[in-house]
Amino acid sequence: MLEELKKEVYEANMLLPKYNLVTFTWGNVSGIDREKNLVVIKPSGVEYEELSPEKMVVVDLDGNVVEGDLKPSSDTATHCVLYKHFSNINGIVHTHSPWAVVFAQAGLEIPAAGTTHADTFYGPVPVTRAMKEEEVVTDYEKQTGDVIVETFTERSLDPDQIPAVLVNDHGPFTWGKSPLDAVHHAVVLEEVAKMTYHTIQLNPHRIDMDQYLLDKHFLRKHGKNAYYGQTK
Amino acid sequence: MLEELKKEVYEANMLLPKYNLVTFTWGNVSGIDREKNLVVIKPSGVEYEELSPEKMVVVDLDGNVVEGDLKPSSDTATHCVLYKHFSNINGIVHTHSPWAVVFAQAGLEIPAAGTTHADTFYGPVPVTRAMKEEEVVTDYEKQTGDVIVETFTERSLDPDQIPAVLVNDHGPFTWGKSPLDAVHHAVVLEEVAKMTYHTIQLNPHRIDMDQYLLDKHFLRKHGKNAYYGQTK
Amino acid sequence: MLEELKKEVYEANMLLPKYNLVTFTWGNVSGIDREKNLVVIKPSGVEYEELSPEKMVVVDLDGNVVEGDLKPSSDTATHCVLYKHFSNINGIVHTHSPWAVVFAQAGLEIPAAGTTHADTFYGPVPVTRAMKEEEVVTDYEKQTGDVIVETFTERSLDPDQIPAVLVNDHGPFTWGKSPLDAVHHAVVLEEVAKMTYHTIQLNPHRIDMDQYLLDKHFLRKHGKNAYYGQTK
Amino acid sequence: MLEELKKEVYEANMLLPKYNLVTFTWGNVSGIDREKNLVVIKPSGVEYEELSPEKMVVVDLDGNVVEGDLKPSSDTATHCVLYKHFSNINGIVHTHSPWAVVFAQAGLEIPAAGTTHADTFYGPVPVTRAMKEEEVVTDYEKQTGDVIVETFTERSLDPDQIPAVLVNDHGPFTWGKSPLDAVHHAVVLEEVAKMTYHTIQLNPHRIDMDQYLLDKHFLRKHGKNAYYGQTK
Repeated sequence: MLEELKKEVYEANMLLPKYNLVTFTWGNVSGIDREKNLVVIKPSGVEYEELSPEKMVVVDLDGNVVEGDLKPSSDTATHCVLYKHFSNINGIVHTHSPWAVVFAQAGLEIPAAGTTHADTFYGPVPVTRAMKEEEVVTDYEKQTGDVIVETFTERSLDPDQIPAVLVNDHGPFTWGKSPLDAVHHAVVLEEVAKMTYHTIQLNPHRIDMDQYLLDKHFLRKHGKNAYYGQTK
Repeated sequence: MLEELKKEVYEANMLLPKYNLVTFTWGNVSGIDREKNLVVIKPSGVEYEELSPEKMVVVDLDGNVVEGDLKPSSDTATHCVLYKHFSNINGIVHTHSPWAVVFAQAGLEIPAAGTTHADTFYGPVPVTRAMKEEEVVTDYEKQTGDVIVETFTERSLDPDQIPAVLVNDHGPFTWGKSPLDAVHHAVVLEEVAKMTYHTIQLNPHRIDMDQYLLDKHFLRKHGKNAYYGQTK
Repeated sequence: MLEELKKEVYEANMLLPKYNLVTFTWGNVSGIDREKNLVVIKPSGVEYEELSPEKMVVVDLDGNVVEGDLKPSSDTATHCVLYKHFSNINGIVHTHSPWAVVFAQAGLEIPAAGTTHADTFYGPVPVTRAMKEEEVVTDYEKQTGDVIVETFTERSLDPDQIPAVLVNDHGPFTWGKSPLDAVHHAVVLEEVAKMTYHTIQLNPHRIDMDQYLLDKHFLRKHGKNAYYGQTK
Repeated sequence: MLEELKKEVYEANMLLPKYNLVTFTWGNVSGIDREKNLVVIKPSGVEYEELSPEKMVVVDLDGNVVEGDLKPSSDTATHCVLYKHFSNINGIVHTHSPWAVVFAQAGLEIPAAGTTHADTFYGPVPVTRAMKEEEVVTDYEKQTGDVIVETFTERSLDPDQIPAVLVNDHGPFTWGKSPLDAVHHAVVLEEVAKMTYHTIQLNPHRIDMDQYLLDKHFLRKHGKNAYYGQTK
């Protein structure tokens, strides 16, 4: 079942090592079939070179395995929460890519410091609050999803316009219109985190870009007035 | 038309990923035929692996497409302004190469800190002032070119001796006697930005090199008394 | 003799250049046969491209060569001390991987700053005290092992839960259930050192992660309640 | 003439791009035949992929071309001064490798901060004083050599024990018993510069290693009591 989506999720997973976003098995990509409400996700702890489309695991939105011989990613419950609450997204990526992790470990959001950021993220990439002990001890992975949703809800952020988050002391999740789109956002996030880390070191007093420049760059690539690229 | 120049511009574009100057499609190279006043430039948002000489777009100096099925780079208007005002240049490169972007986001010029810089740039690489709201909202890409020209004019800088600029909160443009020469300058700029960033961290009180050392290194490679290399 | 272990140790050694952990010959891996009390280790100063399983050297736990035409690694005595005192380990790695060396040269432990660290190391990775002159002049390599053991003993650290140490002003040693496992820990150590170095630069006032998050991540991968991956 | 040495110098030059020590043509290696007092050196400004043993240039110790159709490296006069004054060296390397340049541009020596340094350099790697205007204007390359020799003479440094120097605001020169040995030292210098730069950022109050540890590591690899590696 879902052979096409399995192939798509498999190929998106294989892009993580290609773009140097993962060490060993530290990352996973999923995709969702919105009609069937089924999620396809990488199996837990399996090396990338051993993956194949057939090894992808199919789960329902409560994380129950529907098809597959392997255990799904230990982060499956987080993915499911995000699919339930962010209704436009069809792909999710989790990695421990180093520059994004640096901000997550520092407990700091990634400010919008220039047009490279603005081309993809319509404002700072937020960091969640630290998770509480009771959230970590019980249903940790589900509650990781909850604290991401809380971050977007309480700050009135639009997950379609800021398709990334840093989980405090942990690392990044990104998402998008497809698994491939989510990987694209993971690559941009890592590049932007690297650039902005060094900008802060070089000139900490001048980080936030002008709002009108942020508007211009995000909106020339997204929405009905976009004019970048060949489509539209 | 312009088959030779298309091939040259195509090959120069393909050097951007080779030298690790671009992520995805974040960069473009153009070249100009000064007799015909026509510019050949990369199409907008097309992946490098899908490029070919035939896909290059020909525009006039007002940015109107003269030949080609694809839309030209969204930065075309910036290139056109530079070709109009910097009369000796025949190639232009724009990238978001990370170390140059770090200085652009910090709003800081790259000081001339050593002979690696002086071999190519005859003085600091300037950063433009921040663009004003009205410059961003209307004719943004053309006005980006205008603010670059203003930077060189107001500071009496010679674009032939300093073939690079940082656009504030955005990134670098470089140029040269040919598209290939402009790529060469983009590579040097990125290397120099990396070195000088770390020099500033290590010893912020001692950055600017002696003027006579700057003179020596620039002039042993450029101008009528040059003696580096095999020609002359 | 020990043909299987030689092959295993050879292959583990060849992973050091693959994972960019060594420059030239600056690293070595060993493995132990706990029944025979014999250690297989890389020969001293031999280039990785010239290695083969047959060139591995067999020594007893006092470092005497039992088989092999080549001299064993100059660090052999350190390995032997660790095998004697850390009874559950079957493989050891020594490298000069740069980010781990940075902490060793700074004389600082690597704090547990996030879940990437916690997935492998159950607490900070310790740094030894500086070695005394008499320890360096005589039996230096053996005493290097002694000061590592002292570090774990005096601070009541469990080498099975923190499979790495930084030798002051020198570099890292890691170990594990097998030579391959020890290499795995060397890779993680380097990645974690890189991330946490930059976290300290970005936000020095907020480094240590919550103990309950450390517990959660270490214990979901290790011990009887682990649930990460396909086994168990 | 000197076919063997030309091949050796050619191969040593080709290691510079292999070890990521050069961008474009920013580096050169030479070797000397001490009996004939002739130096073989890379031609000036020629791309590495276009080099061959036959293109190497033979000069005498005053820098006069004895054989070869191409102009020798513009740094030839510096090499000649070093060969005249450092009588045990048979190979010299000059690069603009970035981490070494960072220290050169900062005007700071590379302190001996750990055993990785001590294994190759018996003390800090010195930086020259800034060159004076008259030294730069006239006979610049020869006087670059003179200021290197002055640095070693005035501080009573032994070029056989510290086979590297940083020329102020310029970059590194290294040397050795052969062209290959000089390249080896250039690689180590770059690695050590990278490590120690970050150590200074992490803990500026604790850089210099103990003298007895420096002695131990340098002398276990060099001199009559060396015991590292397979020879001796």
